[in-house]
Amino acid sequence: MTRISRRKFSVLAGSLAGGILVSGVPLALARAPSFQEGKKLGVALVGLGSYSTYQLAPALQKTKYCHLAGIVTGTPAKADKWMRQYGITQDHVYNYENFDQIASDDAIDIVYVVLPNSMHAEFSIRAARAGKHVICEKPMALNVAECDAIIEACKSAGVRLGMGYRLQSEPYTREVKRLVREKTFGEVRFVSAAAAYISRGNPNQWRLNKALSGGGALMNMGVYSIQSCIYGCGKNPVSVSAQEFSTRPAYFKQTDETITAQFTFPGGTVGQMMTSHNASANRLYASCDRGWFELKPANNYGPLSGRSSEGPIAFPHDSQQKLQMDDFARHILEGAPNRAPGEMGRRDMVIVEAIYRSIREGGRSIPVELSVGYGFGG
Amino acid sequence: MTRISRRKFSVLAGSLAGGILVSGVPLALARAPSFQEGKKLGVALVGLGSYSTYQLAPALQKTKYCHLAGIVTGTPAKADKWMRQYGITQDHVYNYENFDQIASDDAIDIVYVVLPNSMHAEFSIRAARAGKHVICEKPMALNVAECDAIIEACKSAGVRLGMGYRLQSEPYTREVKRLVREKTFGEVRFVSAAAAYISRGNPNQWRLNKALSGGGALMNMGVYSIQSCIYGCGKNPVSVSAQEFSTRPAYFKQTDETITAQFTFPGGTVGQMMTSHNASANRLYASCDRGWFELKPANNYGPLSGRSSEGPIAFPHDSQQKLQMDDFARHILEGAPNRAPGEMGRRDMVIVEAIYRSIREGGRSIPVELSVGYGFGG
Repeated sequence: MTRISRRKFSVLAGSLAGGILVSGVPLALARAPSFQEGKKLGVALVGLGSYSTYQLAPALQKTKYCHLAGIVTGTPAKADKWMRQYGITQDHVYNYENFDQIASDDAIDIVYVVLPNSMHAEFSIRAARAGKHVICEKPMALNVAECDAIIEACKSAGVRLGMGYRLQSEPYTREVKRLVREKTFGEVRFVSAAAAYISRGNPNQWRLNKALSGGGALMNMGVYSIQSCIYGCGKNPVSVSAQEFSTRPAYFKQTDETITAQFTFPGGTVGQMMTSHNASANRLYASCDRGWFELKPANNYGPLSGRSSEGPIAFPHDSQQKLQMDDFARHILEGAPNRAPGEMGRRDMVIVEAIYRSIREGGRSIPVELSVGYGFGG
Repeated sequence: MTRISRRKFSVLAGSLAGGILVSGVPLALARAPSFQEGKKLGVALVGLGSYSTYQLAPALQKTKYCHLAGIVTGTPAKADKWMRQYGITQDHVYNYENFDQIASDDAIDIVYVVLPNSMHAEFSIRAARAGKHVICEKPMALNVAECDAIIEACKSAGVRLGMGYRLQSEPYTREVKRLVREKTFGEVRFVSAAAAYISRGNPNQWRLNKALSGGGALMNMGVYSIQSCIYGCGKNPVSVSAQEFSTRPAYFKQTDETITAQFTFPGGTVGQMMTSHNASANRLYASCDRGWFELKPANNYGPLSGRSSEGPIAFPHDSQQKLQMDDFARHILEGAPNRAPGEMGRRDMVIVEAIYRSIREGGRSIPVELSVGYGFGG
């Protein structure tokens, strides 16, 4: 496990003083000194695995408020390929050793950490200390203590922190949040979520290595199931019980294969979730006092699809990653809401820890102790 | 709670000796001495509540192999209305006191027990002792001991026993069983079922009275969730964990409101179910090695609807109760399979008891100890 230095990084003078105030939200633009009206923020992707390659980089060709400006990789061959493909020059290419020099790279405003989970905390903190805004892929880190360290580092450095929660920016999820917020069908009484796929690939992939992933299905798609239950009823849970199931221990040597969990929410709403690396499921369903709504699929890259007791839910498809990164850029540029702040990632990690604890303790109900309310994220 | 007399009822000589053998299945027709080729079996409904009134009696107007021949009710006004409506004469009308006289009523071949759960055992056993074949509504009884007593009584009397499991006879459920049996999508890895509706009616209804119902959602729609998980993967569970949730204790004073449960099946298949009297949900979903299938709705009176990874699942709608009662009549008349024998009802009660025990014991996993395999019921 990556050890996090607790040494404080001194905040550059003026990071907040140089900010402006839009819609009551102070902006820390001092770290993007080259910012001008109309300029796109520069994003550096840290870790050039399949998610960066097939989702984020293509999305950054379509974003309006940010663009691909740099890369961080430990593999020189990948660097060469990306430089050619995206016209990135050598002065915006870093490896994991010289990464901290990114501090003086004015072309980079946002560092997007797309590394194995065990490296999220280290590189999010190093990015913050380099004065860059941070997007951290999910799950936020290996545990709540690491989440706290990331949040503190970003606060100390006066930079913004967003989670790579693409669904928070896409229209089906936002419609669910609206239906819940406006109580279109009354109060949600039961919410059910499933996020699962069948993993049969390379047994040496980092997701199956507990030191790198911190866990299996729960630390991967499970975060979407947790999120779905929460925005599916518009509340944070007060307790959770959970169970783990194992069918292929020879393949899933170190990490959880299938996990089910049950939530209680304020007011008695019941949540039920499932996540797996040994089944395929992708759904959010909520039963309300006067109707129901469903997304299916609910959490893949889309197109998503939805229905309610009043008819179809349908929106044009767009790149979720494009919407997510533009939302974060607009948060920085214009004071738009941070749809997935670090506190949301930390909340989900508190729940992940409670789920693992319930499993260790034979499935008993574990209180979910949160320091934040539900309402953040816009 | 109804106490069951364990006194054995002597089997009439000739009940089996007088039977015939069709397709290797011995038939006990001695108790229906008036049976002739082409004759419809006579059904007496015991208990004229809403299920008898709005589902069973109308279905018995459409059945090919049986017909409504008698009624048993404690309410004379209901008897009058039914006699007029269905042309039933006084000699085929009974109350709960003189019910045993049905033994000498040659027009009645089958007694269908549609009473509150606490009366299932008593009247199923009295019907068997009267020499009548028995259909028992679900859940079979209040506990496994009562199920055993019913099964023994029917065996001793040489009469057939079927559960009121309408879904076992309808085409969507039978298609699911075919997909599972033929491994159309490979092995089922995860199965999920929900059967729930929102109860806001008369707080004095028998379903909310534990002495009469034996339990709430689990003893009602919960049986369908259990059944769905089982036929959704084609196996009986080996263990179950469960949780109970309460939101409206002033209404659900004595009976469970919402229950979730998790099953393990042989080979590692995971099952997840939910049942509630405080939410609306009606679905069966299974994820297999090479695809998935879904029924939604899966367990209401229909029309049901289905989809799989290969396309829609669609059948013409027909009365489930008609199909169920005709299947049971054909079982008696022609040796067709008993699609829902008493052993299936008992199995489900073993699981109900394990679920309640897991809840009492904080959600820990409870072994499901069954004396029968999955394969019965055809």
